[in-house]
Amino acid sequence: MSTNAPPIQRLISELAKLPGIGTRTAQRLAFHILRADDVDANGLADAIREVKERIGLCEECFNLADGPRCRICLDERRDTAILCVVEEPGDVIPIERTHEFPGRYHVLGGALSPIDGIDPDDLKITELYERVAHSEVKEVVLATNPTTTGEATALHIADGLRERSPAVTVTRLASGLPVGADLEYADEVTLSRALAGRRPA
Amino acid sequence: MSTNAPPIQRLISELAKLPGIGTRTAQRLAFHILRADDVDANGLADAIREVKERIGLCEECFNLADGPRCRICLDERRDTAILCVVEEPGDVIPIERTHEFPGRYHVLGGALSPIDGIDPDDLKITELYERVAHSEVKEVVLATNPTTTGEATALHIADGLRERSPAVTVTRLASGLPVGADLEYADEVTLSRALAGRRPA
Repeated sequence: MSTNAPPIQRLISELAKLPGIGTRTAQRLAFHILRADDVDANGLADAIREVKERIGLCEECFNLADGPRCRICLDERRDTAILCVVEEPGDVIPIERTHEFPGRYHVLGGALSPIDGIDPDDLKITELYERVAHSEVKEVVLATNPTTTGEATALHIADGLRERSPAVTVTRLASGLPVGADLEYADEVTLSRALAGRRPA
Repeated sequence: MSTNAPPIQRLISELAKLPGIGTRTAQRLAFHILRADDVDANGLADAIREVKERIGLCEECFNLADGPRCRICLDERRDTAILCVVEEPGDVIPIERTHEFPGRYHVLGGALSPIDGIDPDDLKITELYERVAHSEVKEVVLATNPTTTGEATALHIADGLRERSPAVTVTRLASGLPVGADLEYADEVTLSRALAGRRPA
């Protein structure tokens, strides 16, 4: 017999489904929620429901949006000549945090992975080709993850774009040593990339 | 302007109120909830609401309960002669996990802390004295935390019990080296306790 009453046990299992949350942490969070006042706890429950009800995909870039178009696509000040292609909506945030990217985004909704059955048709790749062909986009920055699937996706899209829109420049985020990292601890692949991409000092 | 739509931002702030969850983790969890199917996400929201609605305190031991009495107090097989006093409902779980404690619990709802304005009246101490006086309890194990406030609470209760129920044995959990720990890294206080509490090998 579990010591916890069923509603507590249920909350613990629901919390443990979140990424990076094990049973112990889920238990700690559940007891925190039990101790919290009703306003705070129900605030979280409402926020979850609201986000699922009100958030959909931007019809232009497929980023998350609380209307037909996302806040970045609605922003008139963004440069429409440069497009950054990312895998997931969550990938937009770190790029925005740099304050260095003036353009708009295109969210693929994942990366190509034949093993997991994710083909070009499962991603917003056709939509990207259409969008680039019918717009003033001059450069597409491929910012998929530096992983096997991310690289494969970037290669596939680069080929597709070169074929369909040869006037458009296609670039890829630089690979190399992360700033602040120690050369001693760098893995060989990263270090090879850093070497291959070396620039005049 | 924040890149996130207001409902997403709201979910991130609600998640960041949980203990040990910073803004980055909250963001990761929020995007996971957005990606999850509606059943899972709303399951979490429902579990939070349900736990706040259905869980109260056991009228006997003040542990969390989904009825007037908790599952441990309702369990006829538990030994009614031995009572374990803990600070919080969450402290019951690790003790239950040992499968070594046959008795019942008494949850104080915190520890004495004059600095934070927590006096004996704020805890279920009078209720403990009453419960011990009007029952067949023969031993009270004080299992408050081995911290300043936990120790002070244990001392206070030990005095009160000796005065009111002199026939009852009052014990305290042993302090000492945690199993698997390295002597080299033990702090002096723990090591002093381990020395003072040494037992025949």
